Amino acid sequence: MKTMVKAPLHAERILMGPGPCNPYPEVVEAFGRPLLGHLDPDFIDLLDETNERLRTVFRTQNQLTFPVSATGSAGMEATIVNTVGSGDTIVIGVNGVFGSRMCDVASRCGAEVVRVDVEWGRAIDPQALLDAHPSPKVIAVVHAETSTGVRNDVAEIGAAKGDALLLVDCVTSLGGIPLEIDAWGIDLAYSGTQKCLGVPPGLSPVAVSTAAIGAFVAKSPSWYLDFAMIADYVTGGSTRAYHHTAPISMIYALHAGLGVLLDEGLENVYARHQACGDRLQAGLVERGFEQFAQEGHRLPELTSVRVPAERLPAGVDEAGVCRLLLERYDIEVGGGQGPVAGQVWWIGCMGHTARQRNVTLLLGALDEILV
Amino acid sequence: MKTMVKAPLHAERILMGPGPCNPYPEVVEAFGRPLLGHLDPDFIDLLDETNERLRTVFRTQNQLTFPVSATGSAGMEATIVNTVGSGDTIVIGVNGVFGSRMCDVASRCGAEVVRVDVEWGRAIDPQALLDAHPSPKVIAVVHAETSTGVRNDVAEIGAAKGDALLLVDCVTSLGGIPLEIDAWGIDLAYSGTQKCLGVPPGLSPVAVSTAAIGAFVAKSPSWYLDFAMIADYVTGGSTRAYHHTAPISMIYALHAGLGVLLDEGLENVYARHQACGDRLQAGLVERGFEQFAQEGHRLPELTSVRVPAERLPAGVDEAGVCRLLLERYDIEVGGGQGPVAGQVWWIGCMGHTARQRNVTLLLGALDEILV
Repeated sequence: MKTMVKAPLHAERILMGPGPCNPYPEVVEAFGRPLLGHLDPDFIDLLDETNERLRTVFRTQNQLTFPVSATGSAGMEATIVNTVGSGDTIVIGVNGVFGSRMCDVASRCGAEVVRVDVEWGRAIDPQALLDAHPSPKVIAVVHAETSTGVRNDVAEIGAAKGDALLLVDCVTSLGGIPLEIDAWGIDLAYSGTQKCLGVPPGLSPVAVSTAAIGAFVAKSPSWYLDFAMIADYVTGGSTRAYHHTAPISMIYALHAGLGVLLDEGLENVYARHQACGDRLQAGLVERGFEQFAQEGHRLPELTSVRVPAERLPAGVDEAGVCRLLLERYDIEVGGGQGPVAGQVWWIGCMGHTARQRNVTLLLGALDEILV
Repeated sequence: MKTMVKAPLHAERILMGPGPCNPYPEVVEAFGRPLLGHLDPDFIDLLDETNERLRTVFRTQNQLTFPVSATGSAGMEATIVNTVGSGDTIVIGVNGVFGSRMCDVASRCGAEVVRVDVEWGRAIDPQALLDAHPSPKVIAVVHAETSTGVRNDVAEIGAAKGDALLLVDCVTSLGGIPLEIDAWGIDLAYSGTQKCLGVPPGLSPVAVSTAAIGAFVAKSPSWYLDFAMIADYVTGGSTRAYHHTAPISMIYALHAGLGVLLDEGLENVYARHQACGDRLQAGLVERGFEQFAQEGHRLPELTSVRVPAERLPAGVDEAGVCRLLLERYDIEVGGGQGPVAGQVWWIGCMGHTARQRNVTLLLGALDEILV
């Protein structure tokens, strides 16, 4: 058995799938910093600064803002299991994989799930969510549906949510498109590091409002994701009660990625994602691809397209083109899943991947492959 | 707001607390490898090889052996929530923090918890666990109790467990002291990366037997930790169903750490931990420290000692000595928690930290500080 460093270096991919994206060089560098213990005062300072940076990017004052020690789906589970249990009603908008996943997670903790389904590729009407139940404890929606490339509008729900808590999946929106946790009345938000933040997967930043904290279930069914216990470590002031060992290296990486983002400026980062997405989508349409997401609700950072069958080389299907992109050009794009498998590609242009040269490369490669 | 790379580099600690330890240089190097997507064939190969290396270190043939995408406590939660639910009985041995935590986790999923308490610092009698209930679904015990430095013997339980499943916390034992998943009849094992494996915290390697798979609850209350779903990704052969995005960089790190360990050889790594622990414990006793763990059950990788009050400098308490070690020498040792707070230190000598020169340094520093 050989150690990894003696093994040949694997390929250097351009990551244009639905995530992860390529990490910023500063993020990779941060992984090399000397390791600190999770109770070291220097690490506590770094964690506090990371959470302050997260507040800036989330656009929130919420004190309980921190990275959950697991990937984005754990952030979904954490926000749900801490707020709904047996006897609670949660309204969930579903127009893709991640809305469906929320229903699965919520039903496992015994909540009554009121599901509002919308055709994949279309946006959810905020009013339909507001009208779905007279007094839900939580209304939940995905801001940027990775599986379809659709943006669901959130602000209108927050403005009219009444006594309900608003829970929003921001996995593919945070740091890529405008998102306003406080101004839009979002009580529970979760994200992932591997999308527009330009950091490898491994953490799920969350932001939790005071109202949400006041409405926590008596005891979270999950010990690992128990927000009340984790808060004693994250926001514990000078004494930090140990809960679990924090994933130190991943927090270094997130801290560095947020630093890159804030140095560039949030507005500039949004503009860069928008410009790359615009050029990519225009270029694909010129080449005969059909956009899957509803016009006016298209995400710049995640493009979903139907591959033009008439342009496929003889004997090569849509999955075969994906393979050629990977093998010849080291470009990863995502093949669709669920109801859109075999029909739709997911092309991400997020974080450090959101550079015009990557758009140029992908379009050039497609020109060489397609007929 | 400045980016991390522009900030002054923080201190380079010798991590001799209860974990994390210092990572192997090869592990740090692995973090720098180009990022792959979680469905990339190259990444799937690397994950398969990581799991094969884990099988070698766990000493198991269990196909369902993989790193849970979160830290050690999530491995604890995962092994419990997939196997016990409402109406199931679990016997849990408690002689420290982590046995207590198992009880908390199991009670949250509605299991009947039969708790076998033993004085902290003493080992648990295997027969007491076997006698605690006539037909438990699971018998659970911590192999290496980090909070006391005690080794609980496991093999006898496995030999006489009957129809029960044996669940073992191997967080601080895996890669540090002999551990035999298959030979000892362990059905569910979980560990952490930041102890004797010499990798930063962030993953929880688990090994699950065929018998345990056959006894899974109908539906795990946790979506994120649902072993039945995760198995489709981890052991899915050529088609890997996406469950959640794997923490790629942490898996690179684990792969590299396991490579270092296997290159050195499991027996040699055990011997290195034993030699460091022996010398550390002898050196501390010579200096008036009193060992907390029961003789014959002392872990070499995690030493718990009472600090000699008569040797403290004027006006400095035991926590003050910890601070001096950190500030003057960049050495982290752990202050006790729970019932032993303020009395006991936890000194880890694990993974890359388990080097004689670190023992020499710590003993030398104590000679300079103590009176």
